[in-house]
Amino acid sequence: MTVNSADDFQGWASAHQCRFEAVLKNFLPADDIAPQRLHAAMRYSVLDGGKRVRPLLAFAAGELAGADQAKTDRVAAAVEMIHAYSLVHDDMPCMDDDVLRRGKPTCHVEYDEATALLVGDSLQSLAFQMLVEQPLNANPAMQLKMVRLLAVASGSRGMAGGQAFDLANVGKQLSLAELEFMHIHKTGALIRAAILLGAYCGGEMPDAQLARLDHFGKCIGLAFQVVDDVLDAEADTATLGKTAGKDADNDKPTYVTLLGAVEAKKMAAELHAEALQSLDEFGSAARRLRELGDFIVMRKY
Amino acid sequence: MTVNSADDFQGWASAHQCRFEAVLKNFLPADDIAPQRLHAAMRYSVLDGGKRVRPLLAFAAGELAGADQAKTDRVAAAVEMIHAYSLVHDDMPCMDDDVLRRGKPTCHVEYDEATALLVGDSLQSLAFQMLVEQPLNANPAMQLKMVRLLAVASGSRGMAGGQAFDLANVGKQLSLAELEFMHIHKTGALIRAAILLGAYCGGEMPDAQLARLDHFGKCIGLAFQVVDDVLDAEADTATLGKTAGKDADNDKPTYVTLLGAVEAKKMAAELHAEALQSLDEFGSAARRLRELGDFIVMRKY
Repeated sequence: MTVNSADDFQGWASAHQCRFEAVLKNFLPADDIAPQRLHAAMRYSVLDGGKRVRPLLAFAAGELAGADQAKTDRVAAAVEMIHAYSLVHDDMPCMDDDVLRRGKPTCHVEYDEATALLVGDSLQSLAFQMLVEQPLNANPAMQLKMVRLLAVASGSRGMAGGQAFDLANVGKQLSLAELEFMHIHKTGALIRAAILLGAYCGGEMPDAQLARLDHFGKCIGLAFQVVDDVLDAEADTATLGKTAGKDADNDKPTYVTLLGAVEAKKMAAELHAEALQSLDEFGSAARRLRELGDFIVMRKY
Repeated sequence: MTVNSADDFQGWASAHQCRFEAVLKNFLPADDIAPQRLHAAMRYSVLDGGKRVRPLLAFAAGELAGADQAKTDRVAAAVEMIHAYSLVHDDMPCMDDDVLRRGKPTCHVEYDEATALLVGDSLQSLAFQMLVEQPLNANPAMQLKMVRLLAVASGSRGMAGGQAFDLANVGKQLSLAELEFMHIHKTGALIRAAILLGAYCGGEMPDAQLARLDHFGKCIGLAFQVVDDVLDAEADTATLGKTAGKDADNDKPTYVTLLGAVEAKKMAAELHAEALQSLDEFGSAARRLRELGDFIVMRKY
C-alpha cells in the first residue's frame, strides 16, 4: 500500500493542525472588538503556537467514535483554550516567572501582568462557552456531562489542583506516588478530558470502551510528562522553544531527578506499551490514537 | 397586616443569607481534601463575607418563576463563585493591589499570590460545574443555554472585558457612555446573569417577560455601581470593610468624579425608578426583586 501524505501520521497531524489554526482564529473574538487589547492578547496566547497535542487527541478519539469534525473542533478548541489559559497563568511572575513560551515572549512580557491575568480568566470562560453553543451530542443531557467533565478536569481536583500541589512541593523530596499524583492532575486530567470529549462527540459507546480510552489517556498523559522531564533535562532552549533546565534549576521534583534519566525513559516506554494495549480492542479505528501515543513518547521537543 | 420576621425583607434576606452560607460550605471542596491549602484558600475567599446581592437576586427571580430552592441554590452558588473569583484576582498586586476585602486580608495577603491566582481559576471551573451537576431545568437544552449565559457574562465580552476596559482607562477622562459601557460589563453582566439564571430554574416564561427581568437587572446593576462610587467617595473604610476612597486615589473614573455626588445620586434614583417600572407587570410576585432594588440603592455599605 502506498502511503500518501494525507494518510501518514505526519500528513494527518499537519492537516489538522493547519485547519485547526483557522478554527481557533474564528472562535476567538476579533481584536477589533472591544476590549481590543484583551482580545489581541487572547489571540496572541492561543494562536500560532504549540503542538496542539490535546486537540489532536480529541480529533483522533472523535474519528474513532465517528464524530462530525465540526463537533470535535469545538471540544478541541475548548480544551486548547483551557490549556492556553493555564500556560499564561503559569508563566506569570508569581508562578513560574517564565519569559519565553513557544519561542515567543510570554503573555505578561508581551502585554502586562494584569492583561495576562484577564487573558487566562477570559479563555477559561470561552472554553466553557465553546461546549454549549452548538449541539455536540444527540442527547443534551450528555452534553451537560461533557461540560462537567471539562470543569472537573480544569479545577481544583484536576489541572489547577495539580499546579497547587506542584507549588506546594517546590524544594521538597517527593515519592514516586506523589509525583504521579501531581502529574495525573496537572497535565493528565486535561489530556484525558480531550480524549473523552472527542469520543462523546460521536456515536454512543459502551462504558467499558470509554474506560479503555480513559486508561489510554491516563497512561499517555503520564508518559507525556515523563518525556517532558527528560527533554527538559537533556534538550536545549532553542529546540524546546521554552527555557530548558528550568525545572531542575527551580529545584522542582521531576522524574529525572527522582529516577535518573535511564529509569525515566524506561518508565515512559512501559507507560507507552500499557497505553497501546488498552487500544487493542478498537483495531484499526484507533490508528491515530496509537500514532499520537507513539509521537508523545518519541518526540524530541 | 402584621409584618413578621420571615415576611419582611430583612427577615427574608437574612434567612437566605444564613441558609446559603451552609449551601456554599457544602458545595466548596473540604479543606482536608488535597490540595488542602488551595481548598482552604477557596473557602476563605468565598465563605463568611459579602452581602450576597447576586445570590439574593437569583433567589428573588427564582421565587418569581416558581423555581425549586435546590435549583436556585446552584445557580446562586455559580454566580457567587464567579464573583468571588473576580474579587480575588482584582485584588492582586498586578490589578488593584488591595489588602483588605470584606474586613479581612485579601486572599493573596492571607495566603500568597500564586495561591490566589489558582483560587480564582479553580472557583471559575467550580462555578460551571455547579450548573451541570444536577438538572436545573426540565429541558436539558435550556440548561446548556444557562451555561452559555454564565460563560458570556463572565468572559471577555462580559465581566472580564469590563475589567480590562477599566484597566485600560486608569487616569483617562471617560465620557458617561464609556463609563456606562465599562460598568454594564464589569458588574452589570453578572447581576443580569444572576437574575436570568434564577428565572430559568422555574417554569417557562415568555421572552417578553424575560426581557423585562433583564432590563430590571441592567438598571439595577448600573445603579449598584453608581451607589458604589458614591459610597466609595463618602463612606469610611470601617463601614465599607474595604479601603475607602481607593478609586479616586487611583485616578479611576467614577460617576462621582464625572458627575459630582449630587448628580450621581440623582442618576441612581432614576435608574431605580426605571428598574421598578420594568417589574410592574409581575405584580406581587416581584416583591422581593423590588425590595432588592430598594436595598441596592438605599444601602449605606
